[in-house]
Amino acid sequence: MTLKLDLATYLDDRRVAIDHALREALPNPETPPALLHQAMEYSLLAGGKRIRPILALASCEAVDGDPDRILPLALSLEFIHTYSLIHDDLPAMDDDDFRRGQPTNHRVYGEDVAILAGDALHALAFARLADPVVCPELDSASRLAAVYELATAAGSLGLVGGQVMDLRTTPPSSIDDDRPREGGRSIEIVEGIHARKTGALIRAAVRIGAILGDATPTQYDALSRYGDAVGLAFQIVDDVLDVDGNPNEMGKATGKDHDRLKWTYPDIVGVPRSRAIADACVQNALDAVSPFASRAEALRGIARYIVDRKI
Amino acid sequence: MTLKLDLATYLDDRRVAIDHALREALPNPETPPALLHQAMEYSLLAGGKRIRPILALASCEAVDGDPDRILPLALSLEFIHTYSLIHDDLPAMDDDDFRRGQPTNHRVYGEDVAILAGDALHALAFARLADPVVCPELDSASRLAAVYELATAAGSLGLVGGQVMDLRTTPPSSIDDDRPREGGRSIEIVEGIHARKTGALIRAAVRIGAILGDATPTQYDALSRYGDAVGLAFQIVDDVLDVDGNPNEMGKATGKDHDRLKWTYPDIVGVPRSRAIADACVQNALDAVSPFASRAEALRGIARYIVDRKI
Repeated sequence: MTLKLDLATYLDDRRVAIDHALREALPNPETPPALLHQAMEYSLLAGGKRIRPILALASCEAVDGDPDRILPLALSLEFIHTYSLIHDDLPAMDDDDFRRGQPTNHRVYGEDVAILAGDALHALAFARLADPVVCPELDSASRLAAVYELATAAGSLGLVGGQVMDLRTTPPSSIDDDRPREGGRSIEIVEGIHARKTGALIRAAVRIGAILGDATPTQYDALSRYGDAVGLAFQIVDDVLDVDGNPNEMGKATGKDHDRLKWTYPDIVGVPRSRAIADACVQNALDAVSPFASRAEALRGIARYIVDRKI
Repeated sequence: MTLKLDLATYLDDRRVAIDHALREALPNPETPPALLHQAMEYSLLAGGKRIRPILALASCEAVDGDPDRILPLALSLEFIHTYSLIHDDLPAMDDDDFRRGQPTNHRVYGEDVAILAGDALHALAFARLADPVVCPELDSASRLAAVYELATAAGSLGLVGGQVMDLRTTPPSSIDDDRPREGGRSIEIVEGIHARKTGALIRAAVRIGAILGDATPTQYDALSRYGDAVGLAFQIVDDVLDVDGNPNEMGKATGKDHDRLKWTYPDIVGVPRSRAIADACVQNALDAVSPFASRAEALRGIARYIVDRKI
C-alpha cells in the first residue's frame, strides 16, 4: 500500500513539474505566427500522463543521475509524442474528433495548421535537445546521442513506420480502397507494429534518461530491455482498454480499433490472454532492472502502473 | 564565360555526388515498411537542384573546410527540404498534383502515407546529423550545433511558420472559409513569409557548412549575411518564375500563386522591380563574402545562378 501511495505522489509531482516546464519551453502563443503557436500549445497542454518524460527521469535516477538536471531535455519526448498524436488523429489517418475529452487539433485549427503544428513540435524536439542555452553543463556527446535515439525512434523504423503498418495492415474499409497494404494478420505482425508505433519511443525515453545520466554500457543495455518490455505492455494495455475501458474516464470513444478492423492483441488472443502477456512483460521489465536495487524503485512502480491503469 | 562554364560543371558534379549519397543514405526500399520507404525514395530521388546541400559544401569550402568530408551530413538539408515539399503539396495545403513533372507523393501513395513519408524524412534529417557511424571524426559539439541550426530553421519560427503565414495570409478562397488568418498585405509581410519559408533553410545550409568546416565567429556572421541575402533572392526569383517561367521547363504549372491570390513580390511591386530587388540581394551576398577572396568563388557563382536560373 505504501508503495502505491508513494507512486501516485511521485507520478503527480513529476507530471506537475513537466507541465510547468512544457509551458515555459513553448514559444509565447502571441509570437507570430500566433495561430501556429496556439495550435502547438493547444495539444501540448491538453493534459496527458507525461509517461515518456517521466520514464526518462526515472531511468536517469536508476543510474544515479540527477533527474531535475535533465528534465528540460526530457521534454523533447513529449514534443514528439504530441506531434504524433496530432498527425494520427488527422482525417487522412485515424480521423478522430476527440482526444483527451477535447476536440482534436484539426477540428479546432483546420487540417493544414494541424499538420504544421505537428511538424513544428517535431522540429522543436530536436531544437530543444541541441539548444545551447538549455542545460549547457551537459556534454555535447551525450546530447548528440540523445538526438540519435530520439530521431531513430521517431523515424521510419520506429513511430512513423509503425503508424504506416497500422494504417495499411488494417483491411480495406471499402471495396474501392485498393491502396497497397503491408503483410498479413498474425500476433508477430501485431507485435511488430506495437514495437514500432509505441515501443520505440518508450524505449528511447528510458535510453535517453540513461544516456543523459551517464549510464555505463551494461546499465544502458539493462534499461533498454526494461524499455522494450514496458513499451509492449503499454500498447497491449492500450488495446485492452479500447475493448473494456470506460469512455468517460478515457475522454475518447472506445471500441474504435475493432470498428476499424485494426489488428490488436485482444482481437487475436482475447482480453484475458492479452492481460496475461502484459503481466509477463512487466515481470521481464522488473527482472531487467533488478541490478539497480532501490534506485529502480520508480521504474518498478511505473511498470506496474502501466498494466494497472484505467486510462 | 569561363566562370559560367566552371559553375555549371561545379553544380553538376556536386549534384551527382549528392544524388549518389542520398540513394545510399536512404533505408533500402525493400525494408519493411516497404511502402513507406518507397514513398520516401520517390520524392527524395525525383530530381531537384540540391541547392541547399550544395550551399553547405560551398560554405565549408569558403572557410577552408573539406566539403567531401561533410557531404554525408549535408544531406540532412535535402531530407528537410523534401519533407517540406511533400507536406506543402498535400490537399489540405497547396493541393498540388505535380512536382518536378511527376505526380506528387500523395497522388501516388495516398495522403496518409505522404504525410508519414514527410514525417520520416524529417526525423531522418536529425538521425543523420547524429548518427555515430556517419563522419565519426567530426566533433560532437559542431554536430550538435548543426542540429540546432537545422531544427530552428525547420520549426515554428522558420519553415513551418512561413508555411502557416503563407497559407493563412492568402485571402479566403470562398465566403465560407472563415478560418482565422494572420496579418494584412504589405511588402514587409511578404518578406517576413519569405524569410521564414525559404530563407531560414537556405541560411541554415550556409551556416551548417560553416560550422562543420570550423568557421570562426566572424566567418559565421559573414556567411549568415550571405545566406539571408541569397535566401531572399531565391524566393523572389521563385515568385517571378511563377509569373513568367516556362511550365514545361519547370515541370509544374505556373501562375498558381496568382490564381490562389497568394501575396508575392511580383503582385505587390511588379516583375521588373522584383528582379531589381533580387539583383540587389545578390550584390549584398557578394559583399558579405568579399573577405573570403577566391575561396568564396563557388558561393559567388551560386548567388548569380540563383537569379539567372530558369527553373
